Amino acid sequence: MPKKRATLLAELRGILGPSGLVEDAGEMAPFLGDWWGKRQGSALAVARPDTVERVAAVVACCARAGIPIVPQGGNTGLCGGATPRPEDADCLVVALGRLRRIRAVDPYNQTITADAGCTLAEVQAAAAQADRLFPLSLGSEGSCQIGGNISTNAGGTAVLRYGTMRDLVLGIEAVLPDGTLWHGLRGLRKDNTGYDLKQLFIGAEGTLGIVTGAVLKLFPRPTSHATAWVALDTLDQAPVLLALTRSLCGERITSFEVCSRSQLNVVYRNIPDTRDPLDGEGDWVALIELADMASDAELQGLLEQAMGRALEEGMAIDAALASSQAQAQAIWRIRHAVSGANVREGYSVSHDISVPIAAVGVFVREAREALREYTQDALTLVVGHAGDGNLHFILLFPHAVWQALIPETRETRAAGITAIVQRTALALGGSISAEHGIGVAHRDELQAAKPPAELAMMRAIKHALDPRGLMNPGKLLQP
Amino acid sequence: MPKKRATLLAELRGILGPSGLVEDAGEMAPFLGDWWGKRQGSALAVARPDTVERVAAVVACCARAGIPIVPQGGNTGLCGGATPRPEDADCLVVALGRLRRIRAVDPYNQTITADAGCTLAEVQAAAAQADRLFPLSLGSEGSCQIGGNISTNAGGTAVLRYGTMRDLVLGIEAVLPDGTLWHGLRGLRKDNTGYDLKQLFIGAEGTLGIVTGAVLKLFPRPTSHATAWVALDTLDQAPVLLALTRSLCGERITSFEVCSRSQLNVVYRNIPDTRDPLDGEGDWVALIELADMASDAELQGLLEQAMGRALEEGMAIDAALASSQAQAQAIWRIRHAVSGANVREGYSVSHDISVPIAAVGVFVREAREALREYTQDALTLVVGHAGDGNLHFILLFPHAVWQALIPETRETRAAGITAIVQRTALALGGSISAEHGIGVAHRDELQAAKPPAELAMMRAIKHALDPRGLMNPGKLLQP
Repeated sequence: MPKKRATLLAELRGILGPSGLVEDAGEMAPFLGDWWGKRQGSALAVARPDTVERVAAVVACCARAGIPIVPQGGNTGLCGGATPRPEDADCLVVALGRLRRIRAVDPYNQTITADAGCTLAEVQAAAAQADRLFPLSLGSEGSCQIGGNISTNAGGTAVLRYGTMRDLVLGIEAVLPDGTLWHGLRGLRKDNTGYDLKQLFIGAEGTLGIVTGAVLKLFPRPTSHATAWVALDTLDQAPVLLALTRSLCGERITSFEVCSRSQLNVVYRNIPDTRDPLDGEGDWVALIELADMASDAELQGLLEQAMGRALEEGMAIDAALASSQAQAQAIWRIRHAVSGANVREGYSVSHDISVPIAAVGVFVREAREALREYTQDALTLVVGHAGDGNLHFILLFPHAVWQALIPETRETRAAGITAIVQRTALALGGSISAEHGIGVAHRDELQAAKPPAELAMMRAIKHALDPRGLMNPGKLLQP
Repeated sequence: MPKKRATLLAELRGILGPSGLVEDAGEMAPFLGDWWGKRQGSALAVARPDTVERVAAVVACCARAGIPIVPQGGNTGLCGGATPRPEDADCLVVALGRLRRIRAVDPYNQTITADAGCTLAEVQAAAAQADRLFPLSLGSEGSCQIGGNISTNAGGTAVLRYGTMRDLVLGIEAVLPDGTLWHGLRGLRKDNTGYDLKQLFIGAEGTLGIVTGAVLKLFPRPTSHATAWVALDTLDQAPVLLALTRSLCGERITSFEVCSRSQLNVVYRNIPDTRDPLDGEGDWVALIELADMASDAELQGLLEQAMGRALEEGMAIDAALASSQAQAQAIWRIRHAVSGANVREGYSVSHDISVPIAAVGVFVREAREALREYTQDALTLVVGHAGDGNLHFILLFPHAVWQALIPETRETRAAGITAIVQRTALALGGSISAEHGIGVAHRDELQAAKPPAELAMMRAIKHALDPRGLMNPGKLLQP
């Protein structure tokens, strides 16, 4: 449809101005692939609106023309939700990165109102400037955007205390599939006036509309921190240790992460200047962080006491407490080095599952057992947010092994592994995607994982709010 | 339709057994009126299923026959959401009170799984038995039910720290309008697999289906408490005092309530053995409660320090700290006596609004000013959860004054007052119903309060999930 296409592009140019529509193939490229280079799609053009009204006008224009839209934030997602598919040549990517204003900070209401295109780091910084904390914290916080954090219900390392993005959103503003702008930017802690529609947009991965702004919750900024590196014999000790720490420290616990020894060894092998705080003790390690308004010394005393009890009661085999900020940073550096280390070491078949917290140990044992035929030439690595029951369970193949396989074998092998990992999680009442979402990566697996009644409701809602299926088609749900 | 009716009742008797279907007018009566006697409706019969499967069978039977259903929990709601309307003579009330099993408590996952018909107090008790806290706390906790708490997104006095019911639900089980049982009882902290459907049922007031069970979040049980009664000059000091207390005490703050002096005087006049802890000081009073895992003395020291700072900085005029549990109880007794005292004193035209926290003072000033013509023979009382921006703003007419009015005048007067109060809240970015919901009481007002795009989405969702409009018709949305 070369003629219709030309008319549409002219109309979009009129709405967006000369700098707002990217049509050059080279300039479009960064918007068409995902950040780790796994996926590559195509599109008619990339719209880069600089006002909310222009987002609405662009969507209305596409709705009239029947053109599908792929909303895109920082494009740091791991499941292909924000990247156009190869078959999407007739779609328009709408990238939100120019909507980048912090609209308001209210220290008394403890809220921040931000454009969808602000990066997570910008929102954190604006909150800090008002002596408040915006607690969401992710590896990609320098480039991921608030709209994407909302659309994927982002998680990270502070979920244990502050919840996922869903728990942090009070109101949203969104452009609906027909181009209507919905003003839902309320900053209220309590509002019981009908269906809580923002909840549908949170985690919808852009399939119901485009989030353009949000009111987010802020918190008092902790003034003290305490960090412990705790060696465990088995992962089963983690939930028990968490329960004890909670009973003594309450909601001061901000993070409770775990790493398998196999994962730590990959880090130490590949990342310079990393060193085990307990000289390799423990098949598993828990990383515990407390934060509070007390003094560092007071908080450290509390954590010391808790770890003392844990050792006495056989819930851990040893513990090292960071005695300075530098030591705490060194501990966290190990945790954050995981992704980089794994890329250097080999090819990861990676999973993002969750189970009830008490079942993390059972899950790893059962998955390992069921995967025996695959693990002869792969390492089994586990790293994750054990306090949320969320584990990244990884089979890592040395580069040489993986490259020696023909592409078909790689695909079959990865699919076989993933099927077993997901089945194991589901059997324990778990989820196949704890924090990364569905996108295209897990879309078909979702069909098997959800009760039919739930899939039917999801489809009914998609159809009710986007009857023509123009919003991020083929993502999350089968078209 | 006498014949069809007889067939339906026979079928329901078959499903429910002899004790499961109430048809006698006398026995039906408690299910047909609301608890404060304002509303009286009618129904074909009252179903009292004792298993989830029977709930599903009853709903399927009604769906086939085109019979509307009114789901009912403890019937303690304040907006008529759970009571059949007078015009509902052909509906079936489905009362959940016999579904009363605590299904599971998982202290490591910090979750409890309960039938919808468990009372809130039963869930609190089961949590306490496992040394955990279920934090939702309401006046009606002895009789309100978990299913109702979910369907109305209940609030209460611990929302500041733990959130509303929405924040406490991890999974639900519900019977959909066609009788399908949806198994959504997941107990996961993280699960990003599509639209979060439970969020639609939370606060839907039974218009999308019947909640039959839920997985709820538990918390560590605080071991120490500290309570302060703080005299303020103006309500504007409350947000500033809250911010200071937060910066010093962090998330230890569990409650931050306020009362106007006028409201306190009504309590002292009507409730024996109540006495002002500061001998009547302050036009406003804030009630602050901290809870933690520390010792009472430690926590009290912290609160004392915070209140000292507040007095120094002119954020309050005086403060009394409870030095024993008995004193803390005496303080809370005053707060909890409000409803009873107001009933004795006169007729309340009551409101449940919320605004951004910093705007509570402006709201009261503007509402008072706008209501001048009404307040010559009424007291203006304010009590509420200021930490959530949620105020119960009440015009209280002495019984003699109110009874002297003819019914039409009463109605017009109440409607006139409510219109002004709601308009004032909305103009400040607030809500017309912070925690009580919509039901029939605010259904028509909702039309004016919400953006058209939002109402259209709500209707689209209702139609998508309940196309024949059989679930709690006429509640929340106009039919």
